[in-house]
Amino acid sequence: MVLSSFVEVHPDSHFPIQNLPYGVFKPEPSSEPRPGVAIGEYVLDLSVVASAGLFDGPVLKNSDCFNQLNLNKFVGLGRPAWKEARVTLQKLLSATEPTLRDNSSLRQKALVPMVKVQMLLPVVIGDYTDFFASMHHAKNCGLIFRGPENPINPNWFHIPIAYHGRASSIVISGTDIIRPRGQGHPAGTSPPYFGPSRKLDFEMEMAAVVGPGNELGKPVDVNEAADHIFGLVLMNDWSARDIQAWEYVPLGPFLGKSFGTTISPWIVTLDALEPFASDAPKKNPPPLPYLAEKISKNYDISLQVSVKPAGEEDTCIVTRSNFKHLYWTITQQLAHHTINGCNLRPGDLLGTGTISGPEPESYGCLLELTWNGQKPLSLGGSTRKFLEDGDEVIFTGCCKGEGYLVGFGTCSGKILPTPS
Amino acid sequence: MVLSSFVEVHPDSHFPIQNLPYGVFKPEPSSEPRPGVAIGEYVLDLSVVASAGLFDGPVLKNSDCFNQLNLNKFVGLGRPAWKEARVTLQKLLSATEPTLRDNSSLRQKALVPMVKVQMLLPVVIGDYTDFFASMHHAKNCGLIFRGPENPINPNWFHIPIAYHGRASSIVISGTDIIRPRGQGHPAGTSPPYFGPSRKLDFEMEMAAVVGPGNELGKPVDVNEAADHIFGLVLMNDWSARDIQAWEYVPLGPFLGKSFGTTISPWIVTLDALEPFASDAPKKNPPPLPYLAEKISKNYDISLQVSVKPAGEEDTCIVTRSNFKHLYWTITQQLAHHTINGCNLRPGDLLGTGTISGPEPESYGCLLELTWNGQKPLSLGGSTRKFLEDGDEVIFTGCCKGEGYLVGFGTCSGKILPTPS
Ligand SMILES: [Ca+2]
Ligand SMILES: [Ca+2]
Ligand SMILES: [Mg+2]
Ligand SMILES: [Mg+2]
Ligand code: NI
Repeated sequence: MVLSSFVEVHPDSHFPIQNLPYGVFKPEPSSEPRPGVAIGEYVLDLSVVASAGLFDGPVLKNSDCFNQLNLNKFVGLGRPAWKEARVTLQKLLSATEPTLRDNSSLRQKALVPMVKVQMLLPVVIGDYTDFFASMHHAKNCGLIFRGPENPINPNWFHIPIAYHGRASSIVISGTDIIRPRGQGHPAGTSPPYFGPSRKLDFEMEMAAVVGPGNELGKPVDVNEAADHIFGLVLMNDWSARDIQAWEYVPLGPFLGKSFGTTISPWIVTLDALEPFASDAPKKNPPPLPYLAEKISKNYDISLQVSVKPAGEEDTCIVTRSNFKHLYWTITQQLAHHTINGCNLRPGDLLGTGTISGPEPESYGCLLELTWNGQKPLSLGGSTRKFLEDGDEVIFTGCCKGEGYLVGFGTCSGKILPTPS
Repeated sequence: MVLSSFVEVHPDSHFPIQNLPYGVFKPEPSSEPRPGVAIGEYVLDLSVVASAGLFDGPVLKNSDCFNQLNLNKFVGLGRPAWKEARVTLQKLLSATEPTLRDNSSLRQKALVPMVKVQMLLPVVIGDYTDFFASMHHAKNCGLIFRGPENPINPNWFHIPIAYHGRASSIVISGTDIIRPRGQGHPAGTSPPYFGPSRKLDFEMEMAAVVGPGNELGKPVDVNEAADHIFGLVLMNDWSARDIQAWEYVPLGPFLGKSFGTTISPWIVTLDALEPFASDAPKKNPPPLPYLAEKISKNYDISLQVSVKPAGEEDTCIVTRSNFKHLYWTITQQLAHHTINGCNLRPGDLLGTGTISGPEPESYGCLLELTWNGQKPLSLGGSTRKFLEDGDEVIFTGCCKGEGYLVGFGTCSGKILPTPS
């Protein structure tokens, strides 16, 4: 029989009792932020659950990890704490358990309607790294910018390529994104273009939230890397292609990316994703030993991007992809990140890079979908080469279980014009 | 008459009353970290000064900014607070002021011998950015890696080029650096090299510590950028050239840099550096209007790198350069960083990039000094292409005033072998 909750959960909800993703929220605008888990159309306030003494397992009983403004302390505790919390919460929320179900005053305090809450960044992000782990994305970028001979650089098949991103400008889903100003490539002998970006794009990514970190100088073994990953979120790595193209040689993307990066509020744990594990693609050439994992897996997470064009009523789906397309797994990404001794800290974010699938309908950004503006997309009544002011971009992602979904909710943002 | 302190200051000290750089220290191994300023061979404990009610100006009187574990709150208060603290401390420490001079019990508590203290990172660094602002360095890198035709990329003369660095692995002077392991370029058709870096280098840089930040979406005007910079430190951006060369296309340096970055403990304020301001180099082509500053200045800071080779008694000076060689000023760097709306936060670090001068004796890293290992350096009895295990690298920097120095102390680190 399928596990079910006394909280009503629609069959198309992303948040059944099988999921229980973690976030940080304010029940009222004036409240302090606190951790919660999503269940149906409610948020379970973990500070209330903890204060009621309901985390009674050995790891969490005396911990104040749910009386914090963010999830950093909890995610830093590691897998034993995560397992214990999951067991406790699945029991507490199950249809057959009276503790919360039959205590109406506690239930009133602990279960807050999702429509009423404000979601915040779930963790303080010390460092944010963005990988480049989809082969289809790497290939398309190479074809667009360097042509058909060797579109993928030779290092790509040996290294989970990545760059350091900007942590300060990571924002929560729903935050407006201001179109960045910057320099673009000069035409002929004139000075560079300067002004609002003319090639504003989204990048459909997911990101791993680091749990326990590692000490400086002590790499994490690839076969233990999953114990350092708490869960995943959706991520939109907004990108100004004109700024990026002009600035990125030789030190990589900088202002073309750092004006904003949006993440979804709910961290879906690897434990909740485990039933949806799928084999990672075979690698040829074989990776170096430090990247060779005993079990190399992705997750079957269907991803979808919709755009609501400025001034229109309807949203249009512009792409459908899947997390399982990643060439380099998140555990390989994490092991590579630390192989030089670099230390990760709880709450650090590791973006996967744009997740493109093999077919044109599964490309993960407008650069690929419109082939750098050469093939405009039609969206209902409008067409787009890149994003226009007022456009809203909405990501969603979920895994399909037997009779339930394990989903991520949405990750959205609307483009505001550059202020003059 | 030159301002002088009742605290004895040797003429060759970096820390006379004209300097008063800020740091964070522990007087005893078991004490809490607290802010201090350096004066001669002492550290003045600012938590003691504050508790004694001696910060009596309007901005600092009721502030707890010196009862913090780091300087983030103080640097975030901005120039009025910095000016007030400087006036208060120069008066308190002056030869003619009895308050501290004649109160032996307070003096005992407030002035801690520098040899006894442990210095810590002065700020919590949210994000660290590394620029590439020396034309001589950019030119030499281009000559070494791309040859004599157009060694400097065309974008370099329009953009203060930079990349996001890794904040978690920034360490305080004196911390050992573990040689990173990583991949290097494959030879022929064999797989990539994997093992301890064979081309470990230092990069002599300085870094600006951000004071008040800016909101996401609100760029800082280049002519107001100095109000967002609290001061400067010395910085060693340790670099593994073999790892960097193989990984950096197309997203820039990653593991070749993120294994460690060392900063000096004392932040010398722009106010203390002001007497040493010097005109920045003329720019041709002229910068875009957002980078054109009314007064474009560097500082005349003599920089020097010494190496103490493993197993030897003596240190050898390997290069002498000067901060005044930078093409892009720190205010241009900061304005550029925010032009896309990227938000800076108090305590963020902006590295200048390697500061090379025009002559071969003034190059800022071994890559340039040995021309990528082609011309080994002789150091006393040894020679070096790159750093060997056990080598210690010591940076120092100072400005020469009339009868006094305004210095940065040292920024040092020793290479430990890769653990097996
Ligand atoms: Ca990306
Ligand atoms: Ca550097
Ligand atoms: Mg971004
Ligand atoms: Mg570094
Ligand atoms: Ni960072």
